[in-house]
Amino acid sequence: MSNISKDKGRVVILGGNAAGMSAASKIRREQPERDILVLEKTAYTSYSSCGIPYLIGGLIEQVDSLVVRSPQKFREKYNIDVRTGHKVVEIDLAAQRVKVQLRGSNQIADEPYDQLLIATGARPFCPPAPGLDASGIFGLSGLASGIHIHEFLAKESPKNVVVIGGGYIGLEMAEALTRLKLNVSLVQKSPEVMDTLDPDMGALVSQALRSIGVNLFLSEGFEAFEVENGRVTGVITPLRTLPADMVILGLGVRPNSDLAKNAGIELGPRGAISVDGRMQTNTANVWAAGDCATSLHRVTGQQVHIALGTIANKHGLVAGTNIAGGEAWFPGVVGTAVSKICAVEVARTGLQEKELQQLGTDYATATIKTKTRAGYYPGSGAITVKMLGERSTGRLLGAQIVGMEGAAKRIDIIATALTAGMTVEDIISLDLSYAPPFSPVWDPVQTAARQLVKKL
Amino acid sequence: MSNISKDKGRVVILGGNAAGMSAASKIRREQPERDILVLEKTAYTSYSSCGIPYLIGGLIEQVDSLVVRSPQKFREKYNIDVRTGHKVVEIDLAAQRVKVQLRGSNQIADEPYDQLLIATGARPFCPPAPGLDASGIFGLSGLASGIHIHEFLAKESPKNVVVIGGGYIGLEMAEALTRLKLNVSLVQKSPEVMDTLDPDMGALVSQALRSIGVNLFLSEGFEAFEVENGRVTGVITPLRTLPADMVILGLGVRPNSDLAKNAGIELGPRGAISVDGRMQTNTANVWAAGDCATSLHRVTGQQVHIALGTIANKHGLVAGTNIAGGEAWFPGVVGTAVSKICAVEVARTGLQEKELQQLGTDYATATIKTKTRAGYYPGSGAITVKMLGERSTGRLLGAQIVGMEGAAKRIDIIATALTAGMTVEDIISLDLSYAPPFSPVWDPVQTAARQLVKKL
Repeated sequence: MSNISKDKGRVVILGGNAAGMSAASKIRREQPERDILVLEKTAYTSYSSCGIPYLIGGLIEQVDSLVVRSPQKFREKYNIDVRTGHKVVEIDLAAQRVKVQLRGSNQIADEPYDQLLIATGARPFCPPAPGLDASGIFGLSGLASGIHIHEFLAKESPKNVVVIGGGYIGLEMAEALTRLKLNVSLVQKSPEVMDTLDPDMGALVSQALRSIGVNLFLSEGFEAFEVENGRVTGVITPLRTLPADMVILGLGVRPNSDLAKNAGIELGPRGAISVDGRMQTNTANVWAAGDCATSLHRVTGQQVHIALGTIANKHGLVAGTNIAGGEAWFPGVVGTAVSKICAVEVARTGLQEKELQQLGTDYATATIKTKTRAGYYPGSGAITVKMLGERSTGRLLGAQIVGMEGAAKRIDIIATALTAGMTVEDIISLDLSYAPPFSPVWDPVQTAARQLVKKL
Repeated sequence: MSNISKDKGRVVILGGNAAGMSAASKIRREQPERDILVLEKTAYTSYSSCGIPYLIGGLIEQVDSLVVRSPQKFREKYNIDVRTGHKVVEIDLAAQRVKVQLRGSNQIADEPYDQLLIATGARPFCPPAPGLDASGIFGLSGLASGIHIHEFLAKESPKNVVVIGGGYIGLEMAEALTRLKLNVSLVQKSPEVMDTLDPDMGALVSQALRSIGVNLFLSEGFEAFEVENGRVTGVITPLRTLPADMVILGLGVRPNSDLAKNAGIELGPRGAISVDGRMQTNTANVWAAGDCATSLHRVTGQQVHIALGTIANKHGLVAGTNIAGGEAWFPGVVGTAVSKICAVEVARTGLQEKELQQLGTDYATATIKTKTRAGYYPGSGAITVKMLGERSTGRLLGAQIVGMEGAAKRIDIIATALTAGMTVEDIISLDLSYAPPFSPVWDPVQTAARQLVKKL
């Protein structure tokens, strides 16, 4: 990622969060004189979206602590022309320019580019539903939405909150709102929460949510919102109406790829902007990175759309290196994710059973329960590890972990092993660290591997 | 590690701890009828040596909680003939038998074997020094020695303890004795404690020890023990005499390989019994495993002697599988170790600078300081990661971590990457897990890799 060559003209970056500002910073480090313009439609840059639930739950107190670098800092310290409140409305590929609506006005201006990076992120998904426009219904989309929720909680003192969707954001928000002593219900279409886990592992997370007082309504979709005077009062499911002063949408996100689509740039799965390993789109001088772009899945070899901050940062670094004239390659993802729901840590990587069934892979699984530390060591807690492997080849395919403190980060062992194309048997002989405060003498992932090899 | 075939006669195992009993258990699982005899010179089987400092420090209360399986349980539940208090005095290779001194007697008996597994462990090392035989001087060698220390502390109420040697055992014992409010001094020949780390990283551990009140005497060897009436009263160094009612030897261990050596079995580095990847010695029908045996270092390709419970268990599993007629291979170690000194976690894997200098490797290092979790998340603590890589190839060579809660287990990412032969650049794009309670958005090991690639 080094040996950067000479200037190649003006860079315009659409979006000033993880991917966009990682790229901008990388270009600036390599090319102190390069002309870099960042157009960001909100008032914020470079913040931690993942920290918003902790702001709302009161674990962190200052909005500012979520902002890694302010627009002012980018301008003053890094000499990057960041313009917030600027909304791009059109990409004109033929003319190599974007049309942008200026801050606080309806005026449209043209900004020419030599290289364009689209890093417009993603937005909360919700199927069309009656009442969706009512006040009190929130998706989590950037720092501004987090601040809105924070303010709504302070001003309106809602009592009954319904979270729709049991993915990471839904669960983290459910926990946060439980911390605030609200009555929290969660509606989830699938039989268990966290459907990026297999249902048997998801059931452990469902149980953890119940234990902190979240009312779960599983295998239950939602149909509409009950609204009075423009404010949400309930969530209507096929089975009941749940009273709600506030609703959080946790149904996942969709890429903000309309600008790209309208310009004729190729899209990939779920409408994300299709990129190669250099983060280049199918269009000359146009790049994409972050939650609006695709990634290669290293286990399946297929393009996927996974919107996570850690991936967005890597995308941005690679795109920035290439735009600055260097050579970098993003080799892809393996599907790693982690979350903490009160005391319970949850992690997954690789492929889950439903993905393997779709692919027609002949796989086996093993699930083991053991301890996070030596059994006799104080604070040793329960950990469940499920591991998946391919029958014909012995290849490792993925793992899921649910357990107490210290459990989840072990998923990184599996993520690294998946990247290396290891077999399940390879896991058994890994020279993993052991001491009583950290692990049983066989690390739980190795105990799972020892069970799984017998079935392959 | 499956498809076990038929009986191949009587198995005799010398040593009933991690390696020996792992092997015995594996053989029993595969061959329910196999004749298995285990000869153990102490009264204990299958215990956690690594837990002894926590017993002494009072973190765990019952000796029994360190015993994974008792001799009785092995006999009754697993039908394994475990004879404790039986000391083997000779291996007769020609006659395929061992001579054993029976429990509580001077009587010697012969026990024939078809397959012999030597799993005799290791013993604390101490160079010859005047006064070494005095009472009050303890090495940590198995559960019995831990119990002796425990009893000595209760009966004699020592006030001043000197720990000689600042490796894992020395430091864990220093911490344990500090918990008991004793005045603890530690004498270490090298400039910093923990010389399996580079001195710059070891300095962080020295600092942690000072902060809990351990008096460090660094760059200071010891010459002799001061003794009165057969009891130790001081430790004499070139610079001073440290008062001591009790001394703990933490100078590392040496393999118990005299029986093998006297029988003419080939020894390797540091006098450990030389084995191949199947854990077979150079002698037909004789195997070795655990702290008395060598391992292949996967990074250097050289044989090494590393005495750790986690390796002993893997050795035992592989030896047991092969003795039972299966096919298993121990591919080696990468030099991983972890420890916790009060709140400070310490881990290392791969090669350190002095090893690389000895090998003549052209290497670079990078050291970064960051946080264990997102900076704004409660409980986020300091973490320092040092990473080493090879200049010509970009190959990852090792890493060292010192930090607060949640820091150390990250070493497993590096251990896995070393096993896979990854480059430093490969680390940057690993799809590691991220959420604010677990990590900054770039995992600290990736931040270190990003710094290191610039120097390669």
